[in-house]
Amino acid sequence: MENIYKEALKVHKKYKGKIKITSVPPIKNKHDLSLFYTPGVAEASRQIAGDKNLSFTLTWRGRTVAVISDGSAVLGLGNIGPEAALPVMEGKALILKEFAGVDAVPIVLATQNTSEIIQFIKNITPSFAGINLEDIAAPACFQIEEALQDIGIPVFHDDQHGTAIVVAAALKNAAKVVEKPYSSLRVVVVGAGAAGLATTRMLLGLNCSADKCEIIPGHSAVKEVIVVDKNGALYSGRDNQNIYKQAVSGISNKEKVSGPLEKVIKGADAVIGVSGPNLITQNMIKSMAKNPIVFAMANPIPEIMPDDALAAGAKIVASGRSDFPNQINNSLVFPGIFLGVIKGRLKTITQEMKDKASNKLASLVNNSSPTNIIPDMFYPRLAEHIANSILTN
Amino acid sequence: MENIYKEALKVHKKYKGKIKITSVPPIKNKHDLSLFYTPGVAEASRQIAGDKNLSFTLTWRGRTVAVISDGSAVLGLGNIGPEAALPVMEGKALILKEFAGVDAVPIVLATQNTSEIIQFIKNITPSFAGINLEDIAAPACFQIEEALQDIGIPVFHDDQHGTAIVVAAALKNAAKVVEKPYSSLRVVVVGAGAAGLATTRMLLGLNCSADKCEIIPGHSAVKEVIVVDKNGALYSGRDNQNIYKQAVSGISNKEKVSGPLEKVIKGADAVIGVSGPNLITQNMIKSMAKNPIVFAMANPIPEIMPDDALAAGAKIVASGRSDFPNQINNSLVFPGIFLGVIKGRLKTITQEMKDKASNKLASLVNNSSPTNIIPDMFYPRLAEHIANSILTN
Repeated sequence: MENIYKEALKVHKKYKGKIKITSVPPIKNKHDLSLFYTPGVAEASRQIAGDKNLSFTLTWRGRTVAVISDGSAVLGLGNIGPEAALPVMEGKALILKEFAGVDAVPIVLATQNTSEIIQFIKNITPSFAGINLEDIAAPACFQIEEALQDIGIPVFHDDQHGTAIVVAAALKNAAKVVEKPYSSLRVVVVGAGAAGLATTRMLLGLNCSADKCEIIPGHSAVKEVIVVDKNGALYSGRDNQNIYKQAVSGISNKEKVSGPLEKVIKGADAVIGVSGPNLITQNMIKSMAKNPIVFAMANPIPEIMPDDALAAGAKIVASGRSDFPNQINNSLVFPGIFLGVIKGRLKTITQEMKDKASNKLASLVNNSSPTNIIPDMFYPRLAEHIANSILTN
Repeated sequence: MENIYKEALKVHKKYKGKIKITSVPPIKNKHDLSLFYTPGVAEASRQIAGDKNLSFTLTWRGRTVAVISDGSAVLGLGNIGPEAALPVMEGKALILKEFAGVDAVPIVLATQNTSEIIQFIKNITPSFAGINLEDIAAPACFQIEEALQDIGIPVFHDDQHGTAIVVAAALKNAAKVVEKPYSSLRVVVVGAGAAGLATTRMLLGLNCSADKCEIIPGHSAVKEVIVVDKNGALYSGRDNQNIYKQAVSGISNKEKVSGPLEKVIKGADAVIGVSGPNLITQNMIKSMAKNPIVFAMANPIPEIMPDDALAAGAKIVASGRSDFPNQINNSLVFPGIFLGVIKGRLKTITQEMKDKASNKLASLVNNSSPTNIIPDMFYPRLAEHIANSILTN
């Protein structure tokens, strides 16, 4: 890992930025200037003044999204602030361009105040076709996203929904491999932050607001999820639960099991770690149901190292790492989601679309096996597949 | 003009945006991904967390500015809103790239509330090396710019300072041509908006806040300026003057001349129109001092058509139009200013720098004549000349 870090710093120094602005038309003479700037540009402005939707076709808006962060929860590094978050946002913009052809602008904010972030994003709306929220800490991220659902362009928090979509896809294929119906799975989710709660919502087919969660008819769902935070299992009425944990606990963990991870993991079919290093032990895995499924996705150090999980009897192991099989990575879906936003000029990304994206991603694996439950980033036309799936009725 | 508009709309439809995002490094394989995104990107983030200044060299921030507008005063079209302003901001981004190699992102805002705009720009600061404010109506533009002078990156309102710098440069050369010392000129400025007040400050060598204007020692200055708005000449204590007009009137028009343009223009050496169409008549020009200098810059229809001004006895005529000699255009300076911001990693753009840029621009005209008082946009390495001038001690 140290070598990767050293080399990464070197290339970051070399390139001084992973993206750049390029002119579409060149300006060769005064006539070009008079078309693309004054006086000619006034005509494009007049047309848009008459119909705002033309801003999607007469400017770059129709193909451009913003990747926005406040730097409050960056990778596994925590609250390192906006400037330090910028390389990651720029990396996402690079991925959007390389894997989906989507233009993206990284924007980091000098505020971590929830209302200011909401106001900022409302105000930037006319500039872009969509907003990718990134690396914003829970529970603020839930509040922010919820407040921005009707601003006319989609706001998609990748740490929540990107993770949830990929985890659900991988879990569907894992269920096939261990020959258990997806709908029969009892799952423990370790971590109740952005990724943990969103994954739980996805696995249970829930539509949630701050108040409550409701089951979405027709959405694929596992049998049961128990979410565990540092105080143990979430259950309805437990102390120390923010409103988003409360909403989820009201509809997960129906038997109101309480206690620490080592207790609630007993007999579970799958455990999904979106928390921190080394929180899952070999003994825990040994206590699970037959053919345990283990997704240990904390980065860079997982909840349990894949080799240790296998040695303890795990049948299928996935992680966030590229040096082991079954890498679960948001980058598998967010480029396709935003390509769909742009192709369909979407105003919102529905739970149904996320479900479709997850099913499509799962379906791209032909011969699923313990080491092959999810496609990789270089799957041909991956973004087009995802985009088309969410645009299909 | 109609033909230009038609052709401009056609190319806007064809290109669907005048700029795009391009990858700097390609992503060819998983190893590239691990350098530019997780896990490698974490090292760039860690370095910046230790020293925020590294965001200027490890990301595109060091070479990228934002062009921001609320759409409240777009070209000569008025308050047409953010979406309709976007083609103009994108046009500026195109010019910054083509003429100065500066990466620029157009951003338009869904608010025209002064405090919200100030808050927005404060919050976007960590993303960029500088901010170009554009097409924001007076007097809000003054308030916004003033509030943002200490945010760590320069905020430059081009409609004010770009115009002022170019006008001052052209006027210096015009004074040479008519063989009058620049410091002897009595000037009438028609229009007391963003461009009019900023030009007046520049011509008198003033540093102004909302409270008052002060003369900057060593700054080149004309003898007198009288500013005229729709209520006639500004003078200290006049009614109907916002605080910015009051501040300027306190130090211009020392004889407190009152009355309409046709009265105060009598005997003036130069008249500078930054207002609206057809406000200057041939009779007014006939009433000016010998060899009148007329800058009629309203777009697209000037205060007086250049041919009519010449027929009335004007010795030198400049306008904003590309179809007459002496085109006065902000685009002559803003690319160079922002190239300077980037090369010098400036935190602010001082009045002294603006003065230097104006002197440099004037000096690029070798054989000044009535039809040659300002260089054109295609002057070789124009942006480099301007950038270097503001970075020279």
